Amino acid sequence: MSQKTYVHGYSVRESERLSDQAQTLTGLLHDDTRYPAGSRVLEAGCGIGAQTVILAKNSPGSLITSVDISQESIRVAGERVRAEGITNVTFQTGDILNLMFEPESFDHIFVCFVLEHLAKPQRALEQLRPLLKKGGTITVIEGDHGSAFFHPGSADAQKAISCLVKLQQEMGGNALIGRQLFPLLTAAGFSDVHVSPRMVYVDASRPALVEGFTKLTFTAMVEGVGDAALRQGLISKEAWDQGIRDLYRTAEPDGVFCYTFFKATGYRDERMTGQKE
Amino acid sequence: MSQKTYVHGYSVRESERLSDQAQTLTGLLHDDTRYPAGSRVLEAGCGIGAQTVILAKNSPGSLITSVDISQESIRVAGERVRAEGITNVTFQTGDILNLMFEPESFDHIFVCFVLEHLAKPQRALEQLRPLLKKGGTITVIEGDHGSAFFHPGSADAQKAISCLVKLQQEMGGNALIGRQLFPLLTAAGFSDVHVSPRMVYVDASRPALVEGFTKLTFTAMVEGVGDAALRQGLISKEAWDQGIRDLYRTAEPDGVFCYTFFKATGYRDERMTGQKE
Repeated sequence: MSQKTYVHGYSVRESERLSDQAQTLTGLLHDDTRYPAGSRVLEAGCGIGAQTVILAKNSPGSLITSVDISQESIRVAGERVRAEGITNVTFQTGDILNLMFEPESFDHIFVCFVLEHLAKPQRALEQLRPLLKKGGTITVIEGDHGSAFFHPGSADAQKAISCLVKLQQEMGGNALIGRQLFPLLTAAGFSDVHVSPRMVYVDASRPALVEGFTKLTFTAMVEGVGDAALRQGLISKEAWDQGIRDLYRTAEPDGVFCYTFFKATGYRDERMTGQKE
Repeated sequence: MSQKTYVHGYSVRESERLSDQAQTLTGLLHDDTRYPAGSRVLEAGCGIGAQTVILAKNSPGSLITSVDISQESIRVAGERVRAEGITNVTFQTGDILNLMFEPESFDHIFVCFVLEHLAKPQRALEQLRPLLKKGGTITVIEGDHGSAFFHPGSADAQKAISCLVKLQQEMGGNALIGRQLFPLLTAAGFSDVHVSPRMVYVDASRPALVEGFTKLTFTAMVEGVGDAALRQGLISKEAWDQGIRDLYRTAEPDGVFCYTFFKATGYRDERMTGQKE
């Protein structure tokens, strides 16, 4: 394809190509979160630091406090961050429902893949809000397993995914929380809530996503609950095996896989902050 | 929210806001299709001209030939286009599977909401390909009813949507075709196929879409097949009524509705054109 034909033809192509370059999962979810130098950022629920590293690199001048309830996770996250040469993150153990910070300690709060595991996500958001300064923002990123669809379609694959949703529900979580971010943040008192869906669309023209997302991220995650699903009798062995095969089938050259993450931002309600202190 | 706080805070907000302005359905689907002045464009399957008007206005210098199998549709489309003062469209009746144009008659082909109604969509694409000049492009836009998910979730609403999918299948169509555009265009011989999903995400912060998409477009469309679905016994009256109520429920202030269209572009394979004539 010559450059000439390309320019002559079709402006959509260029913008699509450029957007493809950013269409790794990290780019898709994180590239538009950049905090100013000097701003104080709380990462609530950092786990073993997978998002911490991205957050810190995208906002190298910010001062990040990353909190998790698990001391062991904090230890691993700390090692990870040090291994990357990152110096703008401090770690603390703490319960997201009962954090020991002074009110208005932070300019921004970042919460990624955390609410899905909480029995009371709205309560967690309500607890976080007073920690923000006036005009401060919260950013929340969550997946939604009910957003997955694919070609070829497969009822067994959908059943296998449903097992994961049920098991997460039994543990007090919600694997369908992505779609609920707007009502959740609004109900928790944040203002000017804005949600943007981020679909991971995978076909054979995007081989890194076929491997990295369809197979190694999503299907591997579903596969991981196989023993539990079968033990609890949520699905037959035959349907499970077929479902997993069908998920891998979507990674073939004529297959397609779609999954949507949701990214929400909201502000601490300024009308309320006048009444503080 | 002062401009100062806004700039200080968060670059994502601005880009989100700007993208919102383009986030009417027309903007979402059509804004990045602009054909150069003088280029010859075939709109294959124009129906009553709903897309023709948008296409012609976005590419006022192009020469558009819009074709449909129904003479009555062509008549209505012609009136519509004249009423808008559009002068760069000519209409012809014709079967998309057997069009009477010379090979290489067009620089670009545009196909929107057509393949979903065809029993042999790949065959249609194969028939269209030789009508393109070397390096010419095809653009295809289709919905996918299996992409719909929402909050609050509802099994009855999903069942009601499935009725629409089944009925369209009985009529020889495929309401789940959006996700298949990559393999379809590739199998039909187009090269460098690129698909971009276009999710319509609707929450209470987007009232025009709540009204215009969730209620008046999607739910009204599902509602429209109620008689046929009940007559054929595809669903119980109770489940149907509840499903429709649940779809409208997603348009309440704490509801969310998601639906994905797919837009594909491909080139006539230049490696093949060397062997022509």
